[in-house]
Amino acid sequence: MPMSEFEQTKRNRVTRLPERAKYDEHTIFGIIDEALICHIGFVVDGKPFVIPSIHARDGNRLLLHGSSASRMLKHFKEGHDLCVTITLLDGLVLARSVFHHSMNYRSVVLFGNGRIVEERDQKMHGLKVLTEHLVPGRWEDARLPSEQELNATTLISMSIDEGTAKIRTGHPGDDDADYDLPVWAGVIPMRQQTLPPIDDERLTEGIAVPDYVVNYSR
Amino acid sequence: MPMSEFEQTKRNRVTRLPERAKYDEHTIFGIIDEALICHIGFVVDGKPFVIPSIHARDGNRLLLHGSSASRMLKHFKEGHDLCVTITLLDGLVLARSVFHHSMNYRSVVLFGNGRIVEERDQKMHGLKVLTEHLVPGRWEDARLPSEQELNATTLISMSIDEGTAKIRTGHPGDDDADYDLPVWAGVIPMRQQTLPPIDDERLTEGIAVPDYVVNYSR
Repeated sequence: MPMSEFEQTKRNRVTRLPERAKYDEHTIFGIIDEALICHIGFVVDGKPFVIPSIHARDGNRLLLHGSSASRMLKHFKEGHDLCVTITLLDGLVLARSVFHHSMNYRSVVLFGNGRIVEERDQKMHGLKVLTEHLVPGRWEDARLPSEQELNATTLISMSIDEGTAKIRTGHPGDDDADYDLPVWAGVIPMRQQTLPPIDDERLTEGIAVPDYVVNYSR
Repeated sequence: MPMSEFEQTKRNRVTRLPERAKYDEHTIFGIIDEALICHIGFVVDGKPFVIPSIHARDGNRLLLHGSSASRMLKHFKEGHDLCVTITLLDGLVLARSVFHHSMNYRSVVLFGNGRIVEERDQKMHGLKVLTEHLVPGRWEDARLPSEQELNATTLISMSIDEGTAKIRTGHPGDDDADYDLPVWAGVIPMRQQTLPPIDDERLTEGIAVPDYVVNYSR
């Protein structure tokens, strides 16, 4: 039994393949924390927009940020509804029949409203959480934001209280009659791969790649 | 000069960092074709929803599909506005300052309306395009959809005529004064990695992994 479980509402309840749905915090937080990007959905003049973005989780809040000049961020400030979806692709599932082809994946769909973080120390804390989500160890090493840079950044916080995870794992599921077909079936696993770091072309001579970059992995 | 360029409209024009924006067909189609998943945004009762999905491109049309029982697909059938966003993550960009940290990525945002593909042969063709997008060579090998399976599948086609690509590549861009800081800067490249295929646990003995799976890559 999960420690904490989100309430199932009309909006977050999974109606298609409900056996793939998870509502517990541990599962949902794990997917949010592993992913490097999210897709933010919002509505302007009745029309849908979906924008890729960096995110991070601070307790039960999702943090998003961007330039204070951003059209999207201005919209979030006004407290409009957001849907933030995060997807990790784990593999291609090749069934014997075309019909049962699928993907192994872990996804989270979150619904909420953004609120702007104005207070200076909270804003600095939020930027630290975002930076450390991206590359743990980086905050202590890089030059921290100046007051001017803080002002040029908008930080949005969204409470994670209505969410669903959907997960598919494992082998294909074929119709019984198809298991005898002379067709290969199985999974092509996939993952996000980190390649060796590339020095900036203007890097000062003698600065080594830090351990947290050398050992980087998700 | 690109062969064909989408018109810039109020909706697709990139206002933030417009130097990253591309409107040409070659760039947009290339990103669509490389990606394995997209994120579909739509509006229900004024609220945004974003769902991950498989997609494929057939000429200048984007194909989406799903179960005929799907709540989402029913909504698409009715011709509502869609925003389909596709994002490929290419690397983490570590600047000397926290402020200039970024990602290298290629993304496409498409706006349109879905129309349902009803005609049997067009539907079969669309499923072939989707299957071959996922794993080229698979359609000739797997069991093709039965009439019952065709009926259980909804295929949606969306014209790709309003789209934008946004691309960031290369090294970090720091403030001039920061280049002397004793901080490592550079890029951690990322890519989608394919791992060796895993046989289905119920695979009939003697069926070899086909070449198009052994040699699979994006």
